[in-house]
Amino acid sequence: MRLSAYFLPTLKETPAEAQIASHRLMLRAGMVRQASAGIYSWLPMGLKVLKKIEQIVREEQDAAGAQEMLMPTIQSADLWRESGRYDAYGPEMLRIRDRHQRDMLYGPTNEEQITDIFRGALRSYKDVPKLLYHIQWKFRDEIRPRFGVMRGREFLMKDSYSFDLDNAGARRSYNKMFVAYLRTFARLGLKAIPMRADTGPIGGDMSHEFLVLAETGESEVYCHKDFLDFEVPEDVDYDGDLQPIVDRWTSLYAATDEIHDSEQAAALGDDLVTARGIEVGHIFNFSTKYSKPMNAVVTGSEGEEIPVEMGSYGIGVSRLVGAIIEASHDDNGIIWPESVTPFKVGLINLRYGDEACTSACDTLYRDLRRAGVEVLYDDRDKKAGAKFADMDLIGLPWQVVIGPRGVKNGIAEVKNRADGERIEMPIAAVVERFAS
Amino acid sequence: MRLSAYFLPTLKETPAEAQIASHRLMLRAGMVRQASAGIYSWLPMGLKVLKKIEQIVREEQDAAGAQEMLMPTIQSADLWRESGRYDAYGPEMLRIRDRHQRDMLYGPTNEEQITDIFRGALRSYKDVPKLLYHIQWKFRDEIRPRFGVMRGREFLMKDSYSFDLDNAGARRSYNKMFVAYLRTFARLGLKAIPMRADTGPIGGDMSHEFLVLAETGESEVYCHKDFLDFEVPEDVDYDGDLQPIVDRWTSLYAATDEIHDSEQAAALGDDLVTARGIEVGHIFNFSTKYSKPMNAVVTGSEGEEIPVEMGSYGIGVSRLVGAIIEASHDDNGIIWPESVTPFKVGLINLRYGDEACTSACDTLYRDLRRAGVEVLYDDRDKKAGAKFADMDLIGLPWQVVIGPRGVKNGIAEVKNRADGERIEMPIAAVVERFAS
Repeated sequence: MRLSAYFLPTLKETPAEAQIASHRLMLRAGMVRQASAGIYSWLPMGLKVLKKIEQIVREEQDAAGAQEMLMPTIQSADLWRESGRYDAYGPEMLRIRDRHQRDMLYGPTNEEQITDIFRGALRSYKDVPKLLYHIQWKFRDEIRPRFGVMRGREFLMKDSYSFDLDNAGARRSYNKMFVAYLRTFARLGLKAIPMRADTGPIGGDMSHEFLVLAETGESEVYCHKDFLDFEVPEDVDYDGDLQPIVDRWTSLYAATDEIHDSEQAAALGDDLVTARGIEVGHIFNFSTKYSKPMNAVVTGSEGEEIPVEMGSYGIGVSRLVGAIIEASHDDNGIIWPESVTPFKVGLINLRYGDEACTSACDTLYRDLRRAGVEVLYDDRDKKAGAKFADMDLIGLPWQVVIGPRGVKNGIAEVKNRADGERIEMPIAAVVERFAS
Repeated sequence: MRLSAYFLPTLKETPAEAQIASHRLMLRAGMVRQASAGIYSWLPMGLKVLKKIEQIVREEQDAAGAQEMLMPTIQSADLWRESGRYDAYGPEMLRIRDRHQRDMLYGPTNEEQITDIFRGALRSYKDVPKLLYHIQWKFRDEIRPRFGVMRGREFLMKDSYSFDLDNAGARRSYNKMFVAYLRTFARLGLKAIPMRADTGPIGGDMSHEFLVLAETGESEVYCHKDFLDFEVPEDVDYDGDLQPIVDRWTSLYAATDEIHDSEQAAALGDDLVTARGIEVGHIFNFSTKYSKPMNAVVTGSEGEEIPVEMGSYGIGVSRLVGAIIEASHDDNGIIWPESVTPFKVGLINLRYGDEACTSACDTLYRDLRRAGVEVLYDDRDKKAGAKFADMDLIGLPWQVVIGPRGVKNGIAEVKNRADGERIEMPIAAVVERFAS
């Protein structure tokens, strides 16, 4: 993409309303624009990142055997009356009345809806287990939306739902999502640690939050330092026994502020790490909480009716864009992990109007694209300083700089955005360096 | 995908509420499920088709130089008050009040929002032309939603918006979308004909509807028979002059019922085709209708303020799922074009429990997937007749049938769903036949 044509309205000034790094940088880098309080439009570069994250989440769900579907944003209030949550949910639910005066709502989550689909379609013990997910916009009418996409009102979420015959099956489904989440966050370049979460009135040990460690995180978290070096499983056989992986990842102390036990933590001594964290995922088994009141049952092998065991598993997809930036930025801007960067390479023509320079850049731009390399080409009539600043702000992992001096010798400068290291290489070698 | 594990709740009975073929078949094939009036959940197979259509629409927008972004579903009423449409829109707009008693709405379209984004980000004549699009869920509170996804309340739409300095530029943008639409519908396996549309109070000739011909179409359309043989342009240079293509495709009579001129049509004599049509796209130049009241101006080269010329261009993405089925089905079920089929091949194990048969099918299933062929494998414990009926209903373009007799000779039967032709071939040759 040529920057001269790209819709990328970067800002020089830091917007006054932005209190945290990701919010500030997403506005400044032209990734999003506020439409109204807590509601954002995703401009082309922001959307590219959002879609890459979404795709990684999708691939890992598919690998774990979950099937993608899509539920609508607008739900009937009647379903939520069946579960008893319509009155319980409070003012964060966006309630709507349609032209026929029917009570509707903008879904903040989909337990009721998926339970309704299940009970309308599946009836036999042979129909389970089922693991279904969708990636859809949700709405929570936060009283004070802030922190940009980190706590917006309209947000994109992946939510999965499992249906099993019994507790053992429910645990297998839970473990699949646990492992899929470890892999998802690792692919996003994040260090995410599962922390036991409050299961509320249902109880049990099947609930974990996944927290990303970032200096600017929203809450205090505590964990054993060995977690930082745990390896994320590769080549997982999701039909095999995942319990050993889950056991290992839950063997050490890790807790959010809410359920932190200072006595238990003190026992860790020097092994205790206190850090800031951002919640990016939450997995939860809630047994028959919805299946019983909503009568989602299957017929067992003896003809008996069995309410299905259910769990739900969420990842905040739009929130992750902010979380990744919180975990990976410096004073100059964003530093994208390669897996989600909007473009792999930023190509800078240092001297607009210089024929040799422009010709070399144009050719390299064409060749990089032909080789399948995603490249953003700064071909604008701007000073070198402004181009460097914008490219650092945008945060692409690699910058390829071609100026009048280098072009004479056929040399480009390649800068690694993360560590700032610069090397020179023949322009002719650049394509091979970045083609994958 | 193994059908025994797939969430594909097919129905034997025809649902009483479904009046048209696509609605009936989408429910029977387990593609969608009604959540509430005019609002649907997309089950896994339905979503696969929806996403393939979306991707083709996206690729052709990108090829035409449009840039993808994403605006939110919930908009502020204030923006619509600026354009004057908030009061004018009527009860089809889903109006919402948030917890702070602010008037919001679920976007039925996005002219106001994109105009607001433009005016907040771009200021110079050098910033245009710009062609932006998004693919997002919309809501229109139809008084009597019907025909399944063809006239639902929550629906997925691709809407593009163009910004130009003058009328000549606006025409270039219009032509790009005109040609992109021809290509999009052709790739979807549809015969779509552009028909001059009513431009209302703005006037001008820059508005066309694209109608798909289908026996079960919603409205009567009239056109010159030569349109049916017009070739859709390939290898389009979108930076070149597209006027000749547009001229050719608008050179003959074509009109919907609303603006049909029976005198003009009568002059065509035997060349007149009268048919049923389904509207799947609409392109429209509306000049400064929004830019003037909303003050979306750029500064010209002399420092003067110029309100931008705008156009909008819509494709009903979820509606297209229905339109394709209306245009391509028979008494037994859907007949998917290869470009949007959820799976290319349906593999039928005729004799569940027969070891040789099952082993041959399992191996072929594995090999087809390894070769990158999308295959749905009917491995269920069901009678042959039920499997044939389900596979015809689902409408995959190719069926590969393996039974006990054939397996002895290493032979599979391959059926073409569209014309019903069956041929026998060695099981060993099947993968090569379908690997692309």
